[in-house]
Amino acid sequence: MQRLNAVVYGVGAMNSIATRFMLEKGVTIVGAIARSPQKVGRDLGDVAGLGYEVGVTVEDDADAVLSRSADIAVVAVNSFLSDHYEHLERCCRHGVNAITLSEEALYPWRTSPALTAQLDALAKEHGVTITGGGHEDSYGVNLVTTLMGTAHRVEGVHGRLDWNVDDYGPEVARVQRLGATVEEFEAWAAGTDRPPTFGRIALDAIAGSLGLTPTSSEVYSRPILADEDRYSKALGDTIPAGRLIGYYDCDTVRTAEGITLICEMHGWSFAEGEHDRNEWRTKGEPAVHLLNDELKGPLTTCAQLVNRMPDVINAPAGFVTVDQLPKLAYRAFPLPTYLR
Amino acid sequence: MQRLNAVVYGVGAMNSIATRFMLEKGVTIVGAIARSPQKVGRDLGDVAGLGYEVGVTVEDDADAVLSRSADIAVVAVNSFLSDHYEHLERCCRHGVNAITLSEEALYPWRTSPALTAQLDALAKEHGVTITGGGHEDSYGVNLVTTLMGTAHRVEGVHGRLDWNVDDYGPEVARVQRLGATVEEFEAWAAGTDRPPTFGRIALDAIAGSLGLTPTSSEVYSRPILADEDRYSKALGDTIPAGRLIGYYDCDTVRTAEGITLICEMHGWSFAEGEHDRNEWRTKGEPAVHLLNDELKGPLTTCAQLVNRMPDVINAPAGFVTVDQLPKLAYRAFPLPTYLR
Repeated sequence: MQRLNAVVYGVGAMNSIATRFMLEKGVTIVGAIARSPQKVGRDLGDVAGLGYEVGVTVEDDADAVLSRSADIAVVAVNSFLSDHYEHLERCCRHGVNAITLSEEALYPWRTSPALTAQLDALAKEHGVTITGGGHEDSYGVNLVTTLMGTAHRVEGVHGRLDWNVDDYGPEVARVQRLGATVEEFEAWAAGTDRPPTFGRIALDAIAGSLGLTPTSSEVYSRPILADEDRYSKALGDTIPAGRLIGYYDCDTVRTAEGITLICEMHGWSFAEGEHDRNEWRTKGEPAVHLLNDELKGPLTTCAQLVNRMPDVINAPAGFVTVDQLPKLAYRAFPLPTYLR
Repeated sequence: MQRLNAVVYGVGAMNSIATRFMLEKGVTIVGAIARSPQKVGRDLGDVAGLGYEVGVTVEDDADAVLSRSADIAVVAVNSFLSDHYEHLERCCRHGVNAITLSEEALYPWRTSPALTAQLDALAKEHGVTITGGGHEDSYGVNLVTTLMGTAHRVEGVHGRLDWNVDDYGPEVARVQRLGATVEEFEAWAAGTDRPPTFGRIALDAIAGSLGLTPTSSEVYSRPILADEDRYSKALGDTIPAGRLIGYYDCDTVRTAEGITLICEMHGWSFAEGEHDRNEWRTKGEPAVHLLNDELKGPLTTCAQLVNRMPDVINAPAGFVTVDQLPKLAYRAFPLPTYLR
């Protein structure tokens, strides 16, 4: 990790953590990009709340930053490929590999096939790799496919992922409809421009990884409502009782091979004492089970992003999803003496 | 899987299950090897209790069977490399890849370095791969290393694996000291010819996978005693109260990198209602957790053995441990209509 040069693309909640992780692992940060006038011109360590200066000034000219010699950009800007396209395209044009936290980028081949194919071609043209990573790299895809590999016959897969919307900043709070009324939510959920659900994307990745052929996808959603006024850190505002603190999706993907994949995704603004929890079960011979409890989602999100950097750099050019990357490896670094 | 030719090497509890799994996945079985006069000369399906004939007669001449054209031998004979060497050597000399259930073969580089190096050289000379697989492929190694990859900093790893000795036949019952007195156990545990513990081998594999440098290993063991007379299926006999129904090991491996690896391995003859359970935790930032509950050890053992066959065949020649193989993948096959 110590010889890598990276660009921090977006300096929000997640890349603030990822910045610290990269620095602790010896990555050289050659530039940082943000749009907000409150961030531009300040030291990255200051904006990221690290408590020390990094010696890198946050800039708003992404092209200028990417034109410096960087091995990889760590992109944490927004969730869906349609919003995200311009940033990944820019990385390609500058010949910089990219790993992004965009949830859809985890496996966008089925939800945004045209944009993904365009990015794939562009990445190949410029000899770089684009990958969508983060928490679901392992907890939504690779731990699950490995678990499935321990079974002789899988008839179905069922996941349930609980996560705290408040951990991921205002952009995700907006995506997760915090503060909306039930009527607003229902109109949005039934609308044709509703973006793809996160659970569906994980299921597409699992299906893709196993070479399964999805034949249909459906989603059932319902709002999760505040039972009393609830302050949301990510929203920076109090949500009145009766309004949304998040929502629940249940995605089902059926495949030609007869394996049905289901993912329940519960994302809401947690109360005190609630915590992240991911659980997967398969039906078949034998049924197998995986529980990851008491997770710290923001930290596992950023740790996987950083631990994946060498895999992305070493991968063949193109849009390469995490199911196609090697086994995720812990990147050990010497622990300070007081931790031994 | 449908184009693979395999030899079943040893027709005990595990290979009886693996035989069925291979047949259901379309593997062609070109021969079966056993020593016992009760098995030799009978149809493999009959010996394995499949309820149908396979058209393969069990033979005791291993060289004759291995001289047929086979892609891989599935070896389930015994636990330790010193006992196991002759069988793996024979596979090499016949140019047949081998995947074995020998627990030590999961990662024998530190417990039997000379024998492993000899087998590695022999395998390379004959252009074949030897791998030790089974339940711990994922539950003791690859799920754990993937879990570690989701953390920024790992200070320590702690596993606890509970397993039912009765599931694995008389050879494993003997290894796990079923029926011994406390005095016999203590003399054996303190003896210099005690074989390596299964937990230690898993920890060696984890350390090897991460490129960590072990500096010391220690084990603490205590017997697990029958509180009343207990019939053991694997032993084929009743264990009197006060004698061993198994034992508990706690292995600790320390590394130069400051990461301490601990594995508690509880192997005993289960009472009604007890079940396999594997749990791993890491210390660090963040602490991460993995639980695999209600496992069916014999089935996950054999399923992984069979799902790994293509990886072993495709791996470079030599002794290649599971930490070096690609991600374990479920090998989907068309489900019968009534299961869809």
